[in-house]
Amino acid sequence: MQDDEQLYYQEFTPSGYGISIKVKKVLFSEESEFQKIEVLDSDSKLGKILTLDDLMVATEGDEYFYHEMIVHIPMLNHPCPKDILIIGGGDGGTVREVFKHNTVEHVTLCEIDKEVVATSKKFFPTLSCEFDNPKLEIIYENAIEFIKDKKNCYDVVLLDTPDPLSLGVGLFTEEFYKNVRDSLKDGGIMVTQSESPVALEEEIKEMYSMLKNAFSIVSTYTSVIPTYPGGYWAWAFCSKDVEPLSFIDEKRAEEITQKCKIYNLNYHKACYALPTFLDELK
Amino acid sequence: MQDDEQLYYQEFTPSGYGISIKVKKVLFSEESEFQKIEVLDSDSKLGKILTLDDLMVATEGDEYFYHEMIVHIPMLNHPCPKDILIIGGGDGGTVREVFKHNTVEHVTLCEIDKEVVATSKKFFPTLSCEFDNPKLEIIYENAIEFIKDKKNCYDVVLLDTPDPLSLGVGLFTEEFYKNVRDSLKDGGIMVTQSESPVALEEEIKEMYSMLKNAFSIVSTYTSVIPTYPGGYWAWAFCSKDVEPLSFIDEKRAEEITQKCKIYNLNYHKACYALPTFLDELK
Repeated sequence: MQDDEQLYYQEFTPSGYGISIKVKKVLFSEESEFQKIEVLDSDSKLGKILTLDDLMVATEGDEYFYHEMIVHIPMLNHPCPKDILIIGGGDGGTVREVFKHNTVEHVTLCEIDKEVVATSKKFFPTLSCEFDNPKLEIIYENAIEFIKDKKNCYDVVLLDTPDPLSLGVGLFTEEFYKNVRDSLKDGGIMVTQSESPVALEEEIKEMYSMLKNAFSIVSTYTSVIPTYPGGYWAWAFCSKDVEPLSFIDEKRAEEITQKCKIYNLNYHKACYALPTFLDELK
Repeated sequence: MQDDEQLYYQEFTPSGYGISIKVKKVLFSEESEFQKIEVLDSDSKLGKILTLDDLMVATEGDEYFYHEMIVHIPMLNHPCPKDILIIGGGDGGTVREVFKHNTVEHVTLCEIDKEVVATSKKFFPTLSCEFDNPKLEIIYENAIEFIKDKKNCYDVVLLDTPDPLSLGVGLFTEEFYKNVRDSLKDGGIMVTQSESPVALEEEIKEMYSMLKNAFSIVSTYTSVIPTYPGGYWAWAFCSKDVEPLSFIDEKRAEEITQKCKIYNLNYHKACYALPTFLDELK
């Protein structure tokens, strides 16, 4: 047992898992129209930490574990992803990874809170580095409204959303998933982050039930994210007409691997193999 | 940031990752001849926690993430594992998993500290449930001495050791690995836990360098362990003559899967696919 005067970022889950990171100081703290935004300095190789409503969104040191996996798995399962929609993702990490693909012609980022983007630009240069890309359009709007009239628009949609227990609650509904489905072109793919499979077990089951009502193809892949409680994260690959691993653009995958710390072709093929206790998420 | 009077088990690594588990009370605390042994009650589904010298060894709630992976990957890569040596592993979880294989004729557990075994028997019935198996022989001895005269004895050796920074230091040497190699029969396999690849990066590199001097075949596999810092763990598959995945006993694998929460054949085949930043551990 430890006991000292150190400042910590701590996060606990109902299942008992928690993470704890020593914090040197709070660099920034603000209440936006939507949420509390904080930037903490970890004083370790994790670097600066972005939190929204006291929940960690990203650390400079290991954000790539999350951003590479949410982006490259669907993008390389599509032969030519040109039009991309990102919902949430105001820190910029998902935008950055999407622009590693030379097929991309237009990226729409629909983020409700402009202060998240502003904070990332100020404190997180490695995350926000593509915010000035001329192919990027940022729309500050509630995604629930934004998606309603979008039909047959996108090759890939990425739901880089906050937790269902926080600001993101309206983004975890069957109606929303059906609207996202209808926004996809034929051959389109949606991937959504689907939380920690060891922390929010009941919420994940409900989420997958809704996803399966909206999409005929729903498949789970997982990877490690060291700074999230439980160290383990899941994403749902969803489509009307594309099976996961039915196609991988191996030439582009090779190029992407050169730019990545996590992604490679073997890891891509392996990430759908789930431990037995997650069988029901298959 | 959180700040309250709750009691925590916390563990931090040089890389900044830490875990934190709320603790209801300390159930047991004793200094054995070798180390401090504690049992904590987590008051969550993680159940009771065993710590040695203030480092977590296992929680009742998620110990199977570790024990299934250290045991079944090598055991199913061997056509008929009869004689098994476990070094360390005094909590009993590795013993329990080994006895799931109906090929096993004799298991030797070489554990230096009899108080670890006694503590597990008293507080961890789900871990210690095979300690009375008549095919098990427990030897309370320093494994460095024990292994020296063992030649051509074992089909599978499992190094279920403490950290190289603690009591286990002498078990992370080239001489020790060479003695373990010589204790294997032809076709034999050694697996050692090889720490968190995101926490002890330098120590792991040194460890793999020594392993490669002792064994002609060294290959890394990984899996998630939610309660270890970083949530991610690596094991080294080592042999003189057996390649990983060159053989899997699929019939036995099917039987083992029925008794497991993590292990299944797909997960087995996928666990050697490493994220790019671990390429050097291949």
